[in-house]
Amino acid sequence: MTQNIWKEVVINPQEKTPLYKQISNQIELLVHDGQLKPGFRLPSERTMAKLLNVSRMTITLANEEMKMKGIVRSHQGSGTFILRGTRLKEKEVQLDNPVDFAYPTGEINHGMDEIMSLGQDQSLINLGGVGAAPEVHPGIEFSQCFAEHLRRNPVLLQLPSPTQGYEPLRLEMINWLKKVGVTAELNEIMMVSGAMQGLDLISRLFLKPGDFVIMEEPGFLAAADAFTATGAKILRITLDEEGIRLDSLENMLMQFPVKFIYVNPTFQNPTGITMSLERRKQLLHLAKKYGVFIVEDDPFSLLYYSEKPDPPIQTLGSDHVIYIQSFSKYLYPELRVAVLVASEGIIRHLSKIKQRVDLHSNNLTQIALHAYITGGLLETHIQKLRYGYAQRLKEVQLRVKASSFLHCQIPKGGVFLWCRIPKEVPAERLLEVAVKKGLTFVPGNWMSGVGLYDHHIRLAFTHPSHEGLKKGLDLISDAISAYKAYQF
Amino acid sequence: MTQNIWKEVVINPQEKTPLYKQISNQIELLVHDGQLKPGFRLPSERTMAKLLNVSRMTITLANEEMKMKGIVRSHQGSGTFILRGTRLKEKEVQLDNPVDFAYPTGEINHGMDEIMSLGQDQSLINLGGVGAAPEVHPGIEFSQCFAEHLRRNPVLLQLPSPTQGYEPLRLEMINWLKKVGVTAELNEIMMVSGAMQGLDLISRLFLKPGDFVIMEEPGFLAAADAFTATGAKILRITLDEEGIRLDSLENMLMQFPVKFIYVNPTFQNPTGITMSLERRKQLLHLAKKYGVFIVEDDPFSLLYYSEKPDPPIQTLGSDHVIYIQSFSKYLYPELRVAVLVASEGIIRHLSKIKQRVDLHSNNLTQIALHAYITGGLLETHIQKLRYGYAQRLKEVQLRVKASSFLHCQIPKGGVFLWCRIPKEVPAERLLEVAVKKGLTFVPGNWMSGVGLYDHHIRLAFTHPSHEGLKKGLDLISDAISAYKAYQF
Repeated sequence: MTQNIWKEVVINPQEKTPLYKQISNQIELLVHDGQLKPGFRLPSERTMAKLLNVSRMTITLANEEMKMKGIVRSHQGSGTFILRGTRLKEKEVQLDNPVDFAYPTGEINHGMDEIMSLGQDQSLINLGGVGAAPEVHPGIEFSQCFAEHLRRNPVLLQLPSPTQGYEPLRLEMINWLKKVGVTAELNEIMMVSGAMQGLDLISRLFLKPGDFVIMEEPGFLAAADAFTATGAKILRITLDEEGIRLDSLENMLMQFPVKFIYVNPTFQNPTGITMSLERRKQLLHLAKKYGVFIVEDDPFSLLYYSEKPDPPIQTLGSDHVIYIQSFSKYLYPELRVAVLVASEGIIRHLSKIKQRVDLHSNNLTQIALHAYITGGLLETHIQKLRYGYAQRLKEVQLRVKASSFLHCQIPKGGVFLWCRIPKEVPAERLLEVAVKKGLTFVPGNWMSGVGLYDHHIRLAFTHPSHEGLKKGLDLISDAISAYKAYQF
Repeated sequence: MTQNIWKEVVINPQEKTPLYKQISNQIELLVHDGQLKPGFRLPSERTMAKLLNVSRMTITLANEEMKMKGIVRSHQGSGTFILRGTRLKEKEVQLDNPVDFAYPTGEINHGMDEIMSLGQDQSLINLGGVGAAPEVHPGIEFSQCFAEHLRRNPVLLQLPSPTQGYEPLRLEMINWLKKVGVTAELNEIMMVSGAMQGLDLISRLFLKPGDFVIMEEPGFLAAADAFTATGAKILRITLDEEGIRLDSLENMLMQFPVKFIYVNPTFQNPTGITMSLERRKQLLHLAKKYGVFIVEDDPFSLLYYSEKPDPPIQTLGSDHVIYIQSFSKYLYPELRVAVLVASEGIIRHLSKIKQRVDLHSNNLTQIALHAYITGGLLETHIQKLRYGYAQRLKEVQLRVKASSFLHCQIPKGGVFLWCRIPKEVPAERLLEVAVKKGLTFVPGNWMSGVGLYDHHIRLAFTHPSHEGLKKGLDLISDAISAYKAYQF
């Protein structure tokens, strides 16, 4: 696509706008449209001049203009690159019939867009997104199990599919949830298309403009997106080694109309911190005192590498907690399945919304998951993950210790390493350099709601291949060195 | 469940409320909770008295109380039944911490809830919901094809999954859509989790309180639910034999801030009417003139039983149309896949919302659909459906002609029969009687936004077995006779 992309840059000598501005404007549009990706190297000035049939001076001016606007960055000898993190305000799409949209797309931070778009690039080593490591990817076993199950029960795909989920799977969840200590009855359980859908449904049930949500700082950025899409505002609270801090929390609960507190208490994304049992109790106490729900996101509890973590907050007070357990980290994220536990009344309301959102989740995936769990395969698979990921974590730890640039919190479980980088290196800039070197990760400030963590990065150590992981960690140090040497 | 349900009815002789009232109140709650389904026959008064350990008189009084409240209906000799269509205002769930919800659940009509809940009841012949007939259900072939495809390409489940959809499937859609005459480029195509999700995303992009949508009267009730969930209002326009009437449409476009016109032009749900080519052109002309979009729902075009229908409105003016083609009727609805076509700008906006709603649709189903289409199996399957459903329609037509109670429009395609019933028989009441006889269908007024079509019913002729279909049609006439005889 990028080979013919220059045909899209049409310049007209008759127009009043100078040629170099016409060129820079159109390249800017190509960047916005996603047709030119961050990290892409523009052809040399000479080649560009030929391609666009203009003088070399015009290209030099166009490049200067784009540098000023922060669209490109050039470095002596290595060429001119489209910048990561330009984050220009998205222009409204021009339609024949302009419409004012209802959805607040403009107010949403673009971190998730970038994580997803970088995640699509197969040429990059992905320490950004969260995926199953190739050596333990359960895909084949999972789908074979499904095919076999269906061969033996050919009528399954013809059964009606309720909004709360495929009933045999929901029944199986009653047992499954006991693994983390959660007890729930059938009518307190619903299946959703990934934790993200759970958060969206919860947001739509509770939030409207003027409402507030409390969440951890730093915290899961996609959750923040779901909350703010409703027009609600987020209050952020930092963590100490025992989890979300409670001193300012009570203050906030007194001052603001908070609808719920969203936490990820076990192996938190991105810090890896696990909330202490005492803190869990205190948090629940405050939630009860101020009559707000806790939304507990629990995707990692079974991925512990030393001892089993404390049970979810849900087990301490189920009436006040909406609990979500995703299968993305236990199987693989593209599957889009999670289980949501709440009081029967809340489940009924969430189901009503889900019915209007997608009627129900697709039956294929749910039937497959049911077969995989009842066959005992998921349990075995998670044991394998615990072993494999613990090994990875050890290696990562060694490599990280050897680096003079990275200061990482080594988690006791989960899939993330939260690392401080030298304070003269801004994380977003480092990502630009890293992408050129073939690597992606998440700059810390994308996980912040208040512009903190500019000098932190989040590294997911479960996604790339073994080799990729080692190379990726080396590349980060390389990128930091390069950045420091050249001050890009 | 219903065997032990009476244990939930706890009565306390110490309380001031009389025993019969305690009982009737608690049964009412069980009906609200969905634990007692409409059509359920209560145990005899004597049995109830024993179960609850009260006098028979108390039960008689409780039943009288419930009859007065419209919770049950009893008929001499046949017992006391929970009423279909009680439609009591849903009580807010009692929580320890009462919350005011943001989602307007109360303002949404409950037709879809009832269609879905009746559809779950395997003991009923289902002429209500839309499903693949068992003799042509593609489930096994579909999943075998998937398993084989994955066996040959074991890496597929490990590929990243973009929000717009699995790219090989989107590429295949370019060809697939040509079957109905729609031409679209890759970046004008996205996959969604069923047409319902498409409508939800469109609603969230365009609609806010104060906005208006125009749709057909009668029309697809789940679409109406998606629109009103945003706080927008719906303007309804009746159809003549050429489709939605245009005289009042222009008037509405002049008077109200309409965001889009939602139509189902081919084999419309529920009437089966197909919009003429001339009407399609005029509708598009008006949409352009007033700068509003047309949202074109096209789930049936390939299910024609005589000649091929006119091409979608999208083919006449793609800039003004958002086109959705569901695979629910071509494969089976529990699969939750549809393709959405719009301008690149609209697709980009819808993708942003979808990313915040569920990140992307699950990869399993999309990979399976891709394999099924590229293997040529879907095309063959749809030919089979056309043949099989045309046969069904002929039979249905004969049976309907023989009935003196049913006056049905016989469609040229699609899956619905729209029938007038005797004017002394209200459709909702008929459903109550029918459910007792083991049958479900959709009362016409559920498809209305303005309280019309009380004496119409929608019959889906593709869901039950062959035998079920025949028996179902006979049962409708039986139910009408029974209603007329007893005036239930």
